[in-house]
Amino acid sequence: MASPVNPPRGMRDFLPADKARRERVLSVIRGVYRSHGFDEIETPVVEDSSRLHAGLGGDNEKLAFGILKRGLTRDDFAAATDALDLADLGLRFDLTVPLARFYATHRGALPPVFRAIQIAPVWRAERPQKGRFRQFVQCDIDVIGEAGPLAEVELITATSAALDALGLVGCTIRINDRRILVGLLNHWNVPTELHERALITIDKLDKIGADGVAAELAESGIATDGLAAALEVGGWDLLADAPAWLDTDAYRALLDLRAAVPSAELVFDPTLVRGMGYYTGTIFEVAHPSLGYSLGGGGRYDGMIGRFLGADVPACGFSLGFERLVDLVELGDDESADAVALLHDADVPAARLVELKSALVAQGHRVRLERRPKNTKATLERLAADGFSRFAFVDAATTEPQLRPLA
Amino acid sequence: MASPVNPPRGMRDFLPADKARRERVLSVIRGVYRSHGFDEIETPVVEDSSRLHAGLGGDNEKLAFGILKRGLTRDDFAAATDALDLADLGLRFDLTVPLARFYATHRGALPPVFRAIQIAPVWRAERPQKGRFRQFVQCDIDVIGEAGPLAEVELITATSAALDALGLVGCTIRINDRRILVGLLNHWNVPTELHERALITIDKLDKIGADGVAAELAESGIATDGLAAALEVGGWDLLADAPAWLDTDAYRALLDLRAAVPSAELVFDPTLVRGMGYYTGTIFEVAHPSLGYSLGGGGRYDGMIGRFLGADVPACGFSLGFERLVDLVELGDDESADAVALLHDADVPAARLVELKSALVAQGHRVRLERRPKNTKATLERLAADGFSRFAFVDAATTEPQLRPLA
Repeated sequence: MASPVNPPRGMRDFLPADKARRERVLSVIRGVYRSHGFDEIETPVVEDSSRLHAGLGGDNEKLAFGILKRGLTRDDFAAATDALDLADLGLRFDLTVPLARFYATHRGALPPVFRAIQIAPVWRAERPQKGRFRQFVQCDIDVIGEAGPLAEVELITATSAALDALGLVGCTIRINDRRILVGLLNHWNVPTELHERALITIDKLDKIGADGVAAELAESGIATDGLAAALEVGGWDLLADAPAWLDTDAYRALLDLRAAVPSAELVFDPTLVRGMGYYTGTIFEVAHPSLGYSLGGGGRYDGMIGRFLGADVPACGFSLGFERLVDLVELGDDESADAVALLHDADVPAARLVELKSALVAQGHRVRLERRPKNTKATLERLAADGFSRFAFVDAATTEPQLRPLA
Repeated sequence: MASPVNPPRGMRDFLPADKARRERVLSVIRGVYRSHGFDEIETPVVEDSSRLHAGLGGDNEKLAFGILKRGLTRDDFAAATDALDLADLGLRFDLTVPLARFYATHRGALPPVFRAIQIAPVWRAERPQKGRFRQFVQCDIDVIGEAGPLAEVELITATSAALDALGLVGCTIRINDRRILVGLLNHWNVPTELHERALITIDKLDKIGADGVAAELAESGIATDGLAAALEVGGWDLLADAPAWLDTDAYRALLDLRAAVPSAELVFDPTLVRGMGYYTGTIFEVAHPSLGYSLGGGGRYDGMIGRFLGADVPACGFSLGFERLVDLVELGDDESADAVALLHDADVPAARLVELKSALVAQGHRVRLERRPKNTKATLERLAADGFSRFAFVDAATTEPQLRPLA
């Protein structure tokens, strides 16, 4: 027996049923985003290394797959001190760096406020583990050029509508604002140089509780009697008290958001941090009640899109983690309803078979030809499992296939 | 001014209008192939280097982008004698090598005759030039496990139907058989070791004519008085004479094909060669009357799909060159018919705008919000060009937007 042949480590093939399911879910998401006024774009899967390693990607930059320069010699290898000496391109690790590059390239051809859809794979050289892959699909929408809360409102509305259209009801969107976090840390006299470390700890509140957070803050030399407990109060009530540490602009933006998105389950969560350092304002995360992890998230990142332009451009985005989402969605049957299999004897000429097939295709059926096996039971079961609804036997005398339902 | 920011060399971004157009064309092709009983699959964009460089890709193997191994040190660089010492993965340069790998991985889960659709990008590190890109989309269908002419018939029928559905009428499909070419060369006493070189020359008949072919054959030391002239006769007439050199199996297969594909413009062309060495039987190429080059092609390649399995598996495929095709297609308007733009004053609250927008989305419109500029003329022209059909002005008092047609 030949040794097993597999796709590259941490990557997956999609067989017909999986591929069809994925495309249907993507098509629902794409349709909702389009009706909400977003426009789909596409960029190459690779970007120049200098863009990928410009500091916009945080820790993900380290996970980029590098692409070897062409035509290198042994001398070039010997002279290299770093992988980046040998790699001029890399596979994108997110859709935000490519969007910043795209916007810098095409700004003149885009409307003043540009609403982008990007639905595409990204690659990260992570250690493969259950549910984590080295190639996976992200669904991003971004509003570029809108400084006001309308951007957040449109993003959250469109994302909620997409989740609703997929039947994922009961999702909760937690929101916060980086400026509120900073105000809180300042109020508790956390020195600026310890903010980043404090945020990483606060981010763990879900997992380690208020006591755990307090202990870890203390370990980091951050004296914060009562900070962790205050965070646990949370919710709109905390906001309603309008405590002294509350950033006024952020406060107003959150109230605007709450007023504008009445249908979504919006929860104010002052402990929401989000990993990426590039957020500058609102941040949000969406979760399904049946899951212990988020389905996606995003926020405002005003300093980033303009980086390759050398200009300041306001921007805000919301990304859905497609791989987490696709397994949750239950879609009803669709086109498989009229899929027909013709099981033919070996002696029916190809010309005849294609004539019968074409007639059924012209009637709107999806048609598959299969040679009739000796024992048809297993074949009929497989066809039913593949979504075929009817079949017919075809022999050399057949002029009109008699379609019968597949049990 | 910042220096220009571009996508990587030889690669392209797609702006909204282009992206929408490409997706619509792909959706037509995908729909026809599905109704003809083909099933779409997906493989990762990268494959292990050992697969990409197994000799199945011909000259394209040299054009593969290699992906640098992770975690290499300076010592590894210094010890490398060849790029393949440093690259464990590569971007696929076609969809056939991945299909062979996919089939080896999943054979047990697939039907006895498997009809695959692959619509996906491939990458080649070619010198960029007009109309030739380093990332481009191929549309492949393949029939695996069918040794008889039914495979060719289904492939040609489905491809013709796809071209018809795209409005590309009048396409001609030239067919030949590698075995006929070999029979012809043997008849003219061309030594086996010179066959490959002779085929490369015959392939140029279109460009350099019979005299040019005769001259080049002579230069290669191939004495072939009358071969080039005989090739120019061509067509079904040549086949009808059933000359002595005609391979009998190939002859029968071509007659079967002609009988089974009555509607397509099938032309027998004994000078058709196709570049790839892996073809073992029928070969075909499709051309549009308005073009000097082919839109796609394919053939039977029985020795290849089984390579990673260590087994013989019959296979036949047809690939459309999407990038050549997409520019030819003229599609009518579709959903853009009900796209609506709301031009709003700056003082309308976000909550109000999203309420108005959501009401129109619920009615089935695609809706874009834009701030109302001082001079609306240029904006209205841009919206019309982007496919919007109606617009309304929205101010703080608007409760029901008055939609007006965009000129």
